[in-house]
Amino acid sequence: MKSDIQIAQEATLQPIAEVAKKLGLTEDEISLYGKYKAKIDHKLAKREGKQGKLILVTAISPTPAGEGKTTISTGLADGLNALGKKTMLCLREPSLGPVFGIKGGAAGGGYAQVVPMEDINLHFTGDLHAIGAANNLLAAMVDNSVYQGNPHNIDPRRIVWKRCVDMNDRQLRFVTDGLGGKVNGVPREDGFDITVASEVMAIFCLATDLKDLKERLSRIVVAYTYDGQPVTAGQIGAAGAMTALLKDAFDPNLVQTLENNPAIIHGGPFANIAHGCNSVMATRLSLSLADYVVTEAGFGADLGAEKFLDIKCRKAGLSPNAVVIVATVRALKHHGGCPKDQLGVENLEYLTAGADNLRRHVENMRNFGLPVCVAINAFPTDTAAEHDCVKKICAELGVPCALAEVFAKGGQGGTELAKTVLDIMQDDTAVNFTYPDEMPLKEKVLSVAQKIYRAKDVTWSAPALKTLAEIEAMGYGNLPVCIAKTQYSFSDDAKLLAAPSDFTMTVRDVRLSAGAGFVVVIMGSIMTMPGLPKKPAAENIDVDENGKITGLF
Amino acid sequence: MKSDIQIAQEATLQPIAEVAKKLGLTEDEISLYGKYKAKIDHKLAKREGKQGKLILVTAISPTPAGEGKTTISTGLADGLNALGKKTMLCLREPSLGPVFGIKGGAAGGGYAQVVPMEDINLHFTGDLHAIGAANNLLAAMVDNSVYQGNPHNIDPRRIVWKRCVDMNDRQLRFVTDGLGGKVNGVPREDGFDITVASEVMAIFCLATDLKDLKERLSRIVVAYTYDGQPVTAGQIGAAGAMTALLKDAFDPNLVQTLENNPAIIHGGPFANIAHGCNSVMATRLSLSLADYVVTEAGFGADLGAEKFLDIKCRKAGLSPNAVVIVATVRALKHHGGCPKDQLGVENLEYLTAGADNLRRHVENMRNFGLPVCVAINAFPTDTAAEHDCVKKICAELGVPCALAEVFAKGGQGGTELAKTVLDIMQDDTAVNFTYPDEMPLKEKVLSVAQKIYRAKDVTWSAPALKTLAEIEAMGYGNLPVCIAKTQYSFSDDAKLLAAPSDFTMTVRDVRLSAGAGFVVVIMGSIMTMPGLPKKPAAENIDVDENGKITGLF
Repeated sequence: MKSDIQIAQEATLQPIAEVAKKLGLTEDEISLYGKYKAKIDHKLAKREGKQGKLILVTAISPTPAGEGKTTISTGLADGLNALGKKTMLCLREPSLGPVFGIKGGAAGGGYAQVVPMEDINLHFTGDLHAIGAANNLLAAMVDNSVYQGNPHNIDPRRIVWKRCVDMNDRQLRFVTDGLGGKVNGVPREDGFDITVASEVMAIFCLATDLKDLKERLSRIVVAYTYDGQPVTAGQIGAAGAMTALLKDAFDPNLVQTLENNPAIIHGGPFANIAHGCNSVMATRLSLSLADYVVTEAGFGADLGAEKFLDIKCRKAGLSPNAVVIVATVRALKHHGGCPKDQLGVENLEYLTAGADNLRRHVENMRNFGLPVCVAINAFPTDTAAEHDCVKKICAELGVPCALAEVFAKGGQGGTELAKTVLDIMQDDTAVNFTYPDEMPLKEKVLSVAQKIYRAKDVTWSAPALKTLAEIEAMGYGNLPVCIAKTQYSFSDDAKLLAAPSDFTMTVRDVRLSAGAGFVVVIMGSIMTMPGLPKKPAAENIDVDENGKITGLF
Repeated sequence: MKSDIQIAQEATLQPIAEVAKKLGLTEDEISLYGKYKAKIDHKLAKREGKQGKLILVTAISPTPAGEGKTTISTGLADGLNALGKKTMLCLREPSLGPVFGIKGGAAGGGYAQVVPMEDINLHFTGDLHAIGAANNLLAAMVDNSVYQGNPHNIDPRRIVWKRCVDMNDRQLRFVTDGLGGKVNGVPREDGFDITVASEVMAIFCLATDLKDLKERLSRIVVAYTYDGQPVTAGQIGAAGAMTALLKDAFDPNLVQTLENNPAIIHGGPFANIAHGCNSVMATRLSLSLADYVVTEAGFGADLGAEKFLDIKCRKAGLSPNAVVIVATVRALKHHGGCPKDQLGVENLEYLTAGADNLRRHVENMRNFGLPVCVAINAFPTDTAAEHDCVKKICAELGVPCALAEVFAKGGQGGTELAKTVLDIMQDDTAVNFTYPDEMPLKEKVLSVAQKIYRAKDVTWSAPALKTLAEIEAMGYGNLPVCIAKTQYSFSDDAKLLAAPSDFTMTVRDVRLSAGAGFVVVIMGSIMTMPGLPKKPAAENIDVDENGKITGLF
């Protein structure tokens, strides 16, 4: 089979102005970025009036390879369009880090891709660079304030705002900066995150207009004074300039699928330290422009979907009309204990054992009060018996299940799934949140741990408890919690596969994201700056003298 | 008078597609970035056939406020167009650092501006972000190579490739990174530069096509082995991915002046550590599209123009048909010893004394074998007697001089200068370079110091001599030299104003820019990462809920 980039480069794209026209957008409502990308005025996102139906694509607990949520989302949108349903795909923006690291691109795969894939995977329309610049302007202004007489009485040991780069660069995880003597800053310990882990990204994705964006930015807590009082980006005087840097980026980006169907790709926060889904502006805009909107949430349903529902839907007043859980035969076998080198060999015992993971994710989504179906993302190594086995398990659960062959066949391979989604879809849904706003933060964490992860209990480190008390004393006890833990297990131990129970989780650290509007609760060690592998994907990427890129996948 | 941003926001812009059409460009030859910015396919830059005339705008030794080269260049281009001459303006791209620091925007001033000024001053079309990403990908790959078994035998103490951010951030000048234990890199001393100081920027501006760009990138020396051998970006395997990151950025950007005349703005390297002028692609493309091209070089003529001629023109086979030296009455008085608080008061003695600075720059440009004229950039505090005084001095020198009132009057205020430029213009010129390629590096430095700066001698620090010997041993002795020194004086002492002589200069350090193709020679302390002032310009920048930006100037 052809590589992703070969398929993408052979596709016949429509001028994006024509794609926009089909959505009823005038030339004045879009800004072209080349011939095949455009930004749409965010003010066209309506909160009232005709709204499309929202379909959330999530997944079982993934393997490191990922279970293909983006590919399934793309194929499902193409499948719905093939059935004559006016459907918009709504995805996250890729970061350069994974593109040059292990994973390669993040624009779907096979015949279920968004294009132009090279642009989307590289700079796209510059949104991530704008977010990085806003993040780093704030950092420079904070350190400059300390250097220039420290009018805010900031304790340099308690500057919590990190700089960022959109790159996998482990060398920057822990640094000391401000070295070199009196004229070169104030020495302190520091570190960098990858741009997508910045709170600015989370804010960008949760803000509902430019005013809200600026207000959220100004609420960011960047440091604490020697007296332990929070210092905000607003006090530093950075919020206006940061908003100016983000103004254009805030307009959602329009591209297309290989089958020329519209796709909005906008925002992409981490699903551990942040909430892991595209921007509220993009989702709202999509719902204003199409009858059906297919969107995705990061990692497995315990992380991405939980946060999509308990954070994004709660804050933005959204509720999905259907949820799709993506499973692969390979990952289910992995959860059932199958050794890595035998994942390509038919084995129904491993598959049946691993299906416990799928069962629990289905249960969880049902507990949110939402209609659920399962999509089997077909792989060439799967056997018919294995597909039948998964379908039988789903039938026992009473959950509709469809085989999705979108990687190999595009939208035509997604019509079975599309029909299944249309079947389960409910007009009016209301998310049954895991916890109410007014519940104390500690109980919120316990609620998620017990209801979603099925933990027995949660223990807290002493520093985490201290920080929690400070956050509540500052008046942020009513925020939702954003739990950062491994995506490979329901628990905080990546090795506990399938559906572990009776485990106790440990909160190591707590961080306030006052601008984004959630409290990050860290269980286990969470990476906010990845590293490059021994042979980075970057080494294979090349471009010829005509500008044709190779080696992206 | 209105602020720059007020004037810019009140301007009536033409759709950039129309501006492009007037240049004979088809829709397929440009890529729109919104309605008022476009990129032009760099392959349209022709080396043969009809070529326009090149006008270089440079200046006397500046004050910290700058002498308005961009403003004069813009007004001159508008003035030439007002006279019916088909003229293209060709400028450097602003960096975010100065925009948020002291200087504010860099898109001209008053009624001689390029627009949309907010876009040009902020992210524009993302070129600087692309350059920063390419720079930082290389840095991450170098450190990753050391971390992953160090196959190239790199001495971590001799990694010379720095990371960069497009921000004034003194806190990052000197850092230690790779801290935090074995899984988090290899500890070493390090530092960040501002993006415009990156060698990638210099390469971007000197490359003649994508192939040349990739070859230059692969020649970058990033580190030395324990045996003292150079390790290049090509050996690290980064050149292809870096070129992929720069591919779109490499196409020059088209915008317009307030008077709807075409302007190409592309590339912007520092004028100390690098050569300080826009890209070769932009200049060549402009010469292919227009009959007259007005371009500028950074700082005063001793730095910017010398490098424009000895580096850019030498390498790209260009030669200006006319040179304009910008002077202000205020700066000439400053050179004559006038105290800062009296610069706005008429004083012909200070002015006459300070004119020595102008005289020497005129002489230098004549020594390059080029026709020269002087532009007086009019300020409201200037008097008629002062303007007459400068004109008299120019008459004595035999150099044509014109008053340029472009800040207040736009192109109409630039027609006198435009006529003067047309008068002096010569069809065929050939730059009389300061030194030949084959001259040893040390003698090249002495040639520039004696012929351009008028120094008595140059002394070298021991480390500089050692590095120089290494560079020559590596076979780079035939490269031109790029001297980094203060822009405020002909000498390496910022306090020696006007036209000092009989001084000795000291070379502190030497650095190889093998990809850019020059040897950087550092005299005095040169800042490659500026800091923010006590009250950063960023604090005044704001944006309202409709996206209208205020506070840029």
